[in-house]
Parts: sequence; C-alpha cells; structure tokens
Amino acid sequence: MSRPVLITGASGFVGRPAVLSLAGREELEVHAVGRGSAPGWLPPQVRWHTVDLLVPDAPVRLMDEAAPEAVLHLAWEATPGRFWTSPENLDWIGATLALARALAQGGKGRRLVGAGTCAEYDWSDGWCIETRTTVRPQTLYGTAKDATRRVLEAYGADTGLAVAWGRVFFLYGPGEHPDRLVSSVARRLITGQRAPTSHGRQRRDFLHVEDVAGALAALLLAENVSGPVNIASGEPVAVGDVLTTLAEEAGRPDLLGWGDVSLDDSEPPLIAGDVTRLREEVGFRPAWDLPEGLSATVAWWRDHA
Amino acid sequence: MSRPVLITGASGFVGRPAVLSLAGREELEVHAVGRGSAPGWLPPQVRWHTVDLLVPDAPVRLMDEAAPEAVLHLAWEATPGRFWTSPENLDWIGATLALARALAQGGKGRRLVGAGTCAEYDWSDGWCIETRTTVRPQTLYGTAKDATRRVLEAYGADTGLAVAWGRVFFLYGPGEHPDRLVSSVARRLITGQRAPTSHGRQRRDFLHVEDVAGALAALLLAENVSGPVNIASGEPVAVGDVLTTLAEEAGRPDLLGWGDVSLDDSEPPLIAGDVTRLREEVGFRPAWDLPEGLSATVAWWRDHA
Repeated sequence: MSRPVLITGASGFVGRPAVLSLAGREELEVHAVGRGSAPGWLPPQVRWHTVDLLVPDAPVRLMDEAAPEAVLHLAWEATPGRFWTSPENLDWIGATLALARALAQGGKGRRLVGAGTCAEYDWSDGWCIETRTTVRPQTLYGTAKDATRRVLEAYGADTGLAVAWGRVFFLYGPGEHPDRLVSSVARRLITGQRAPTSHGRQRRDFLHVEDVAGALAALLLAENVSGPVNIASGEPVAVGDVLTTLAEEAGRPDLLGWGDVSLDDSEPPLIAGDVTRLREEVGFRPAWDLPEGLSATVAWWRDHA
Repeated sequence: MSRPVLITGASGFVGRPAVLSLAGREELEVHAVGRGSAPGWLPPQVRWHTVDLLVPDAPVRLMDEAAPEAVLHLAWEATPGRFWTSPENLDWIGATLALARALAQGGKGRRLVGAGTCAEYDWSDGWCIETRTTVRPQTLYGTAKDATRRVLEAYGADTGLAVAWGRVFFLYGPGEHPDRLVSSVARRLITGQRAPTSHGRQRRDFLHVEDVAGALAALLLAENVSGPVNIASGEPVAVGDVLTTLAEEAGRPDLLGWGDVSLDDSEPPLIAGDVTRLREEVGFRPAWDLPEGLSATVAWWRDHA
C-alpha cells in the first residue's frame, strides 16, 4: 500500500525539485500544495492541492483531504530582501503550528519535517554543528524559524509526532529568484553588466537546490532521525571563488567589480554546516559538485536572462 | 489627554485585578477584552470588548476599535491540569503574534507586555535571574511562552514596538480556580476533607494575585523597561509552611495528609524569582505578605466552598 506524504511550498525553488524527487518513489502517494493552480511540470501521479496555508482553517481542511502520514513543510515567506524582517514571518509561525496540530490530530500523521535555516545559529562560531553550536538567531526570520522548531519539538514530545528540522544553508541553482547572490551575478555577467562584489574572502557553504531538495526528501523518509539536521555541503568555499567560477563560465571575468561592495563588520568570515548527521544518519550525499552546479546555473541564465 | 491601554484576558484570575489596578489611574483610557460579556465588577469608566482572540482577524478588528498605545496581554490557555500540554498553546502563539502585528501596524501601538512564566527557566538553577538563568522550558506551555517572547522581541527590534515580558511565578489568592494548589487545599480544609500533600519541603515563590496583577500593570507603565522581568515575591517558602498556615487559618491541621503525595524526582527543591528588576527598574513592591494573603484566601473559601 502506498504511503501518503505531502509537500507544502511545492511550487517554490526548493519545492519543485523536492516534489520531483519524491514523485519518483513508487511506495509513496505524493500530495503537493501551493497557492496557485497545478504547475505544468507536475508529474501526473502527484496530487495537487491549491491551498493558501495562511487562510485560517486551511491546514485542517488540507489534512482532512490528503490525510498524509508525513509532511515536508517548505512553505514560508521567502522573497529576497524582504524575508529577513517581513512581518509575514509571524503569520507563518501560526500557519506552521496549525499545520502540525492538524497533522497530529487527524490521526494518521506521524512525521513532520520543517525547513529551518543556518540563520538560527550563532554565526560567530563558523562551523555550525547541530549538537554543539549555540542557537542565537540575529534576525526575525531566524528567530521565527527557531521558535517554530522549539514549539514543534515540544508538541511532538507530547503527541508522538516525530519532528525533524532541516537547517538549510546557502543554496543556488537554475531558476532561483534573480535577486539572490549567485543568480544576480550570473544574470549580470550574461547580460554584460558589471557585477559589484565584495572582497569575496568570506567563506560560505553552498548546496545546489536539487541537493537541498534531495536532502530534505531523504530526511522526510529517514524515520529514525529527529531534531535539527544541517542541509549543507560541508565544504565551504570563498564567495570570491564562486564568483570567479561564474565569470569564467560566462567568459566575462572583466565584469566582476571586486570591492565595489563593502562588507559590514558583522559579516562573518565563515558560515559552514557540519554534515555528519546528514551523511551518517540520513544517509544523503550531494549529486552536484559546485563547479558543475555553477556551470549549469550560468547555462540556465543564458536562456533566461 | 488620556492614554489608551488595553488588557486581554481581562475576566481571568489575573485579568480582573489588573483591570481594577489600571482603572484607578486617571491618565489612562482602559480597554478590557474577554470572551464573555462585560462582567458585573467592571468599573464604569472601563470600555469592554467581547472578543475571542483565537478567531482569525479578531486581533486586527480589536486594535482598530480600541487603538491602544500599550497592551497588557494576559489571555492564554490556563485551565489547571490541561494548560501544560494543551495544543491550544499553539493557537495562542499564533493569536499573540497576530495581536502584536495588529498593534504595531495600527500606527499607535508602542508597547506590549506579555505574561510569561517561571516555567521558561531551567528549574535546576533554583534562583531564577532574568539575565543569568538558562532558559530551558520542559513543557509545551513553557516552550510556547518562551518561543512567543523570542519572536516578539525580534519583531519589536525590527518595528520599534517595545516588548516586556512578565515571568509569573506561583500565584494564589481568593477566586483562584479550585484545582490549583492553594485553593484546592483551602477548600478541602474548609469542607472537612483530608488534603493529601507531599513532604512539603520544596520551596516555591508565591505571590498574591493582586500583587501579580499590580506588578504587571506597573510593568505596562514602566516605559523604559523591556525584556523579561520576574513577577515574583523574591521570598521562597516551603510548600509545607504554606499548607500549615492554611490549616491553622482553617483550624484543621489534622486534615493535612503529609506524605500522601510522593514527589517526582524531577520536582526541584527550589524555584524562586530574583526580583531586582521588578523592584529597582519597575519600582514595584508587593502589598500583601504571605500569611495575610493566605488568611484572606481561607476566608474567601469559607464563603465559596
């Protein structure tokens, strides 16, 4: 008998590859949820639900309708430039808790995997280790995600709902919002515009969006894993190296405006995720390496810039 | 010109004396909110709003109607025996954040004081000091309150809404729910029933409900104070001494069933609130001492048992 699972935020940047990853598994009955109508790329075996989770009672109706055993909850406010401080973060806390409650109380729900963020950690630590790095978010977004996880874990302890929490680091890939770092630089390079950059020495942990989605899908299915799990590559690189690779792929290294952007003192030199849990407990390894992923991203922008 | 303030949970055990405390101040225009209709004890100058804050959009409508500058938010799930694990804790997080958002976005709102709990602290510390004791709630209720505070503080930092958080310790007083410790024992003693108790050596920090309400009202008006503030007496007493005082007031020390209840190993020997912030920054001192408060409580139960 197939096992019903549900993915929220399914039309988003991470949601789409997450749906595609799970849709390939015959043992699953995949339900996908988005605010709009069913997207063209949706595999025929996936059941689509047009639902705005911010509408009161929408979570309860959705759980009644789909009756999933496990939910991968990706929906959240994610508009670049806005999401760090948007008051919609507050609404998404409420919607997420309502979703968890509807899942646990519907009777069939056993597992919830949420999308957290590396911004929950104290970034002065550099390497972020789930069991050791202090949680000290500095933004409303990070605080909202962290607070949601705390409550979900306490609620799960009382109700038996298993809760896992994928802390997503820096992601990139074809189709990303054009205002995010990698896409904005790739687009400028492709269209012949100067790309202002910082000195580029700060190191970050980048993961291709298909691997982010694959890791979250694997976490959904890793039933013995609970609590926070870094969704990262474990291989931090200098941002400058990422930009250089992009520029070489685009054939326009002359367009990189090194030092045009001055970094705030609060910008940490290193943000990297320890991936011991992801590799050993979830059993996930990325499919993309960074140069290939960046090359694919530049190629995508050639068609879409 | 009078300054509009609003109190939620106004018909509750703490809400009623909080309304009465604030209603006595001529400089304030006091709005009080409860799910039921206006209670008989309501002073005529207080404006009553019958609102269920768990209804979506109720916070926005309420803020439009009352347009307060400051809110004392007491409403939450509080049914004895249920509130520690009730899934309604999740709903109250959402409602509280919606209230904060409506307050900040309405344009006039400048200050929000929430009712937290000593159950946010790591109780193995004994003395709880706002700036030093680890926050480590062990219950859904404590986690929900703590998570709400974290998000409110981050939201306040982004929007300019000042947020203070009164962490309420052990309260008692006339009119308390009959299933709470002091009231249940007082009632049994008055009605001639054996009152099962533990060894009674654990020390707790009790504060009369009128002082709890008075301290929260003072915190609402202490505009320079933000963040967590213990609402406590700062004078922990052995629970056994509280029960002995009750029994002496009731004239039935023979009814105390010492040792009938065995305490869990997790029951901490001491839970007490440091009141330096409450005394020195808020400028509040309790009006009731414990023997007088307990005597008044027993007297109340003589009329109501």
